[in-house]
Amino acid sequence: MQKGFTIWFTGLSSSGKKTLSSRVHLKLKELGVTNVEVLDGDDARTFLSKGLGVTKEDTDTGVLRLGWVAEILTKHMVPTLVSSVSASRFARDEVRRMIEHTGGKGSFVEVFVDCPVDVCSGRDEKGAYTKARSGELKHLAGVDEPYEEPHRAELHIKTDHVGPEEASALILDHLRSHGLI
Amino acid sequence: MQKGFTIWFTGLSSSGKKTLSSRVHLKLKELGVTNVEVLDGDDARTFLSKGLGVTKEDTDTGVLRLGWVAEILTKHMVPTLVSSVSASRFARDEVRRMIEHTGGKGSFVEVFVDCPVDVCSGRDEKGAYTKARSGELKHLAGVDEPYEEPHRAELHIKTDHVGPEEASALILDHLRSHGLI
Repeated sequence: MQKGFTIWFTGLSSSGKKTLSSRVHLKLKELGVTNVEVLDGDDARTFLSKGLGVTKEDTDTGVLRLGWVAEILTKHMVPTLVSSVSASRFARDEVRRMIEHTGGKGSFVEVFVDCPVDVCSGRDEKGAYTKARSGELKHLAGVDEPYEEPHRAELHIKTDHVGPEEASALILDHLRSHGLI
Repeated sequence: MQKGFTIWFTGLSSSGKKTLSSRVHLKLKELGVTNVEVLDGDDARTFLSKGLGVTKEDTDTGVLRLGWVAEILTKHMVPTLVSSVSASRFARDEVRRMIEHTGGKGSFVEVFVDCPVDVCSGRDEKGAYTKARSGELKHLAGVDEPYEEPHRAELHIKTDHVGPEEASALILDHLRSHGLI
């Protein structure tokens, strides 16, 4: 029977979280793991985070809320892929605690999608950095808000050196070697 | 394979939603349906609705948010029991639309837990009516906010006449006759 687990892709805007999540999703599908849920900070915003602002407290609340949903899904044996900047170490560690409490040790896989801010800013897929420069957007992680790097991520992937194919293979290896697939 | 569906218990505070949901949960367990998720407006509040107020817009947002989680669970074949006053017909119909879109026709089972407001107010399990009388609580459905009765609930249960045992049996009959269990 499929085990429940959550892969949490954390990193700066445009660091490559969603690309990596999509690639892992595809690989899981090819392996016959078809009941995967993909949660994205942006997609979830419509329902989950409506009304929340950009202060640290509000973004922490958004991360914990996404974590709460991932915890329920993990409990019901649904492999869940979450892409979320989640710059706060406290919030990520809280989510880890919640998910491991429900899904057991190893059920939370934190993937640090690491990419220098100038490279991310050059990609600027959502225009976040442009908005931050013009002052339209405040509290952007890596610009005027700290991104607290993970201390104990299960995987640390430098997306300016490792392509999505290689990176997703590393993640699948981790899932296999930890008996999650 | 277990089908996904959501039973949505709607009605005034202290109308008996949670009692009925617990009884249905127990009966499902006895039938071997063990992967049930129980979502409660109050339990979910910590994460899901933190920061939301009591205006119609905010409570609608809370209901839609709970519906969004129920939709994901329904998609993943998890029978989901939701207890929520959800006084707004618009919000309930939106949730119906979302869940039936994902889970197919019949996957949303609206149960109108109907009980006269004076009976509910006499029970007052959470002290909501006492608080409303003293002015401490505003926008309580049935008191100073309308409860919009369902027009097309799959089940209409008058909990001042029908006990939880009989009522839960009616719900199980519905699930059986609609091929949900």
